[in-house]
Amino acid sequence: PRLEAGMAGDAPAMRGGSVATVPFGETDDPFALVAAAVRAGARGGSAPLSVALSDRLWATFVLRIESALAAGNSRPTLRLASEVIGRLRTVKSAEESALLRAAGRAVDSVVKAITSGKLVGRTENDVAREVRERLSGAGHEVASFAIVGSGKNSASPHHEASSKVIDAGDAIVLDIGGQFGGYGSDTTRTIWVTGPNGAVPPTDDFLHRYEVLKRAHQAATDHVRPGVSCESVDAAARAVIDGAGLGERFFHRTGHGIGLEEHEDPYIVKGNGTLLVPGHAFSIEPGIYVEGLNGARIEDIVLCGDSSVDQLNNTSRELYVVPG
Amino acid sequence: PRLEAGMAGDAPAMRGGSVATVPFGETDDPFALVAAAVRAGARGGSAPLSVALSDRLWATFVLRIESALAAGNSRPTLRLASEVIGRLRTVKSAEESALLRAAGRAVDSVVKAITSGKLVGRTENDVAREVRERLSGAGHEVASFAIVGSGKNSASPHHEASSKVIDAGDAIVLDIGGQFGGYGSDTTRTIWVTGPNGAVPPTDDFLHRYEVLKRAHQAATDHVRPGVSCESVDAAARAVIDGAGLGERFFHRTGHGIGLEEHEDPYIVKGNGTLLVPGHAFSIEPGIYVEGLNGARIEDIVLCGDSSVDQLNNTSRELYVVPG
Repeated sequence: PRLEAGMAGDAPAMRGGSVATVPFGETDDPFALVAAAVRAGARGGSAPLSVALSDRLWATFVLRIESALAAGNSRPTLRLASEVIGRLRTVKSAEESALLRAAGRAVDSVVKAITSGKLVGRTENDVAREVRERLSGAGHEVASFAIVGSGKNSASPHHEASSKVIDAGDAIVLDIGGQFGGYGSDTTRTIWVTGPNGAVPPTDDFLHRYEVLKRAHQAATDHVRPGVSCESVDAAARAVIDGAGLGERFFHRTGHGIGLEEHEDPYIVKGNGTLLVPGHAFSIEPGIYVEGLNGARIEDIVLCGDSSVDQLNNTSRELYVVPG
Repeated sequence: PRLEAGMAGDAPAMRGGSVATVPFGETDDPFALVAAAVRAGARGGSAPLSVALSDRLWATFVLRIESALAAGNSRPTLRLASEVIGRLRTVKSAEESALLRAAGRAVDSVVKAITSGKLVGRTENDVAREVRERLSGAGHEVASFAIVGSGKNSASPHHEASSKVIDAGDAIVLDIGGQFGGYGSDTTRTIWVTGPNGAVPPTDDFLHRYEVLKRAHQAATDHVRPGVSCESVDAAARAVIDGAGLGERFFHRTGHGIGLEEHEDPYIVKGNGTLLVPGHAFSIEPGIYVEGLNGARIEDIVLCGDSSVDQLNNTSRELYVVPG
């Protein structure tokens, strides 16, 4: 839209001048304009057009662009731009790695503040609000998510935050992150709230599961190096948890890539044979959950380095046992 | 994803049981599952499939669903679901109208609070933060946007909020809204901040433009009734502003539909010949902007009633001249 052409021109992708903007008025047909621009830029003469689309382009635009580019019985071939630029996106440059590292430091400072502050008697929503404020205060331009799962909510990996009041005897899964200089931060730590004077200490069962989890997280982390597959990193975490007889309590993938998006390639999951190379950035985040009771998760963002792992989150990975 | 199947089941669209969920694990191929479900539900035997997609489905899903449904040389016909359910969405039921009305009352209470509170010396961002808190406090489940454009920022219709400090002599365009019971609120009022004791009153030029704007807003509002076209509502506002020689300072459409989405059909814009029927809900929001100086906008959500307009925002449409 012409009204937003100025803002579009300010976007990082516009630096360097290799992307053209085509402003349009509210009564113009933007799809005809796109089709004309694509045809004008096409190489290959009269060969059928092949057009790469942004992964998240809405269907309403996909279908109307396809229709505007159709000529007689000839339809353009639509592909995903991510197939073309995927490797550029997954393998981080030195500048990108530096931003991810800075994002990691920023989110770590929020973990430190929350784990050393008051928790008992507050709602999950109130703690989540504080997390978002601190993410912004630590330099994130977007405070993307603040998962605060306490008590039985800690057993639900996709819980966000609720009006539940945090109580002594609650485990808390704190999974937070945002965007820092355009790049994502994402880390998880687990807290046990005892109440005053250690009134309700963690149960032996919970401590046992946490020790297994810590070993699983460490095993996956130690496994990271160039040439190993993404699925083998997942398998390294899973082997420890399976070995302790807790396999069915770890029911999600071990991790996801991170960069300009919170979740992007490479995914650390069974079936992904992609081999790690230096510059791959992703999360390692095994979890162990007992539905209706509680759960625990440990998550760091790591880079695959030249010969081993490079951890971008460095707060303590021990269970945070706090009076709250 | 299986992890989110429970949450999906809680969505309003799942009530009534006419939508099926197909949970999938992290190593399943969800596109094969969708294709199997579509084929199983298809009517028309071996005729080519015609599949309706959500408007905002991502391209990465559009292309992979299309590929999973292709058989030999036969590709499915992809359409937009909005073509099928559009009329259901644009014409609001009594229950939907009641929610839009309640959303209007809620956002009006925020306008009253902000226009009667302190403004001078605060940043636009700080006022926007207060707007979001008050939108939530007034019952919105999502505080979607809080545009606070002061001084020359008021001349930029797509400005959001910035670190600019509000000063005496600033016009402020306050354009705010959220989601209330699933339905959108959206209203705009214009403020002039004089400073203490009316130190910097509005200029004669600004007051003149505001009077023209108010007449344009009223003309478009008065024009609303069943059987008139969307573009004629736009034309009614534009005629007043054009008549005052200010046509080029009103460079956006007059309005947009509103409901489950902030912006949806019907759009109040030249070229939209859709005829209004009772239950159409949309904004009327002309604006007059002088780049580099200041601007003004007045916006209400209205319903097309059985014989005339039904305004859902009812705070004063006069210029709010406040000490700030």
